[in-house]
Amino acid sequence: MRIAVTNDDGVYSPGLLLLYEAVSSLGETVVIAPLEPRSAKGASLSLEEPIRLYELEVEGVHVYGISGSPSDAVHVARELLGKVDVLVSGVNIGDNTSIQNILVSGTVGAAAEAALLGIPAVAFSADVEGPRQFLEDDYRRLVVRAARAVTRLVAEEGLPEGVDLLCVNFPREFRGIVKLAPPARLRWREKLERRVDPRGRVYYWLYGEPMDPEPGTDVYVVHVEGGIAITPISLDFRARGINSVKLERLATEVSRAVAKC
Amino acid sequence: MRIAVTNDDGVYSPGLLLLYEAVSSLGETVVIAPLEPRSAKGASLSLEEPIRLYELEVEGVHVYGISGSPSDAVHVARELLGKVDVLVSGVNIGDNTSIQNILVSGTVGAAAEAALLGIPAVAFSADVEGPRQFLEDDYRRLVVRAARAVTRLVAEEGLPEGVDLLCVNFPREFRGIVKLAPPARLRWREKLERRVDPRGRVYYWLYGEPMDPEPGTDVYVVHVEGGIAITPISLDFRARGINSVKLERLATEVSRAVAKC
Repeated sequence: MRIAVTNDDGVYSPGLLLLYEAVSSLGETVVIAPLEPRSAKGASLSLEEPIRLYELEVEGVHVYGISGSPSDAVHVARELLGKVDVLVSGVNIGDNTSIQNILVSGTVGAAAEAALLGIPAVAFSADVEGPRQFLEDDYRRLVVRAARAVTRLVAEEGLPEGVDLLCVNFPREFRGIVKLAPPARLRWREKLERRVDPRGRVYYWLYGEPMDPEPGTDVYVVHVEGGIAITPISLDFRARGINSVKLERLATEVSRAVAKC
Repeated sequence: MRIAVTNDDGVYSPGLLLLYEAVSSLGETVVIAPLEPRSAKGASLSLEEPIRLYELEVEGVHVYGISGSPSDAVHVARELLGKVDVLVSGVNIGDNTSIQNILVSGTVGAAAEAALLGIPAVAFSADVEGPRQFLEDDYRRLVVRAARAVTRLVAEEGLPEGVDLLCVNFPREFRGIVKLAPPARLRWREKLERRVDPRGRVYYWLYGEPMDPEPGTDVYVVHVEGGIAITPISLDFRARGINSVKLERLATEVSRAVAKC
């Protein structure tokens, strides 16, 4: 079995080697990730810029560093391995619960890119206090055991029809619960803070205040129940309301507007 | 009515001012877009870097340029306008048909970010030969009329339940058809090309070869039928198969693996 490991926090994140530790016994494993952190860069691809590839040694593990994005890494991994049987991404510093985070996360973006290529994929993220929590023995054991079990099953049996990838989110303090949970829609109330730099020029910080999580969602499992949330994701963007009267009328109005074009 | 116009090709793309021309008669309009092209950067957000804001004049139109991404622009637009009633993004140089493109497009990413904030949003893209096609009179007329009709209806009546945003894609040569169409899954067979630079160092280009489009999809309408495709998009990533036996078993196996953690 050929396994690709990537992330969006970059080659020096302890979460990357932790995921390598979890899956490397399952098959031939290549670690390939962005040289620099690419958090919140979604499913970005390098189309304007070429992709550079560097070979590094990080704590005794051979790691490929690329100049591009996590989704670029999926393509380069395919080039390096010939065929990728399963792609795992993470373990991200910070959970990626909710549709809002899933849309923007580079960790999930890489898994989504793999899914579109037909590669079973899992994105792992954790509500850690910071990267140092990945170095604690108890936390390492939790993540390694869970990530290995998920990856082994997904690699061996694939994902059910209609499921493109899995997002697995770890809580900060595990309270013994493991749950399948759908994503909440929102996790953050986003805000902009206006500041003035020492040279008198204005700039803005984008940040978010957490919203109250709805019971049953991934956010609730991770942040309220202290559980591991396993969230099956579909990339089927097709809206069901495609034949609604409102949309039929919109198409008719557009037809009329361009009738003489 | 307050309208925000953005794109991912940057403030100097003729598609941006074309969209301004289409919608500015409908209400108070702010144009705010990345200073530099941000194609294929998906729903990226600037969380590590602050966002800078510049005021420019482009062909007589007041334009805000930002250092960040199209999705950042949505947040800054809200800051500038107080409230945004409708967000339009584009007109993108190159169509954004298929789930594969939707996932990666900055133009669609901005519309998705707006949708999550509860703002009705439309992403406009065109299979133009290049930016110059936006300067041709016939093409301008087509885009302006269609984009105005769509934006007016969406702003006045909102989108139907279950539809988060619309993607509207224009063909290169319009043959009189306007259709509601779901997105194809794939549009490109992606490849990596290995090259060696003049200094003897290896780099890669990521590119795609177009796949045969399936009848009835957005790709087919735009590329085979020469029609305008209106594609309702849902951001509901929830997979339907959440209670499948396979996933229940996976959760059980993970529970077992972490039982002593």
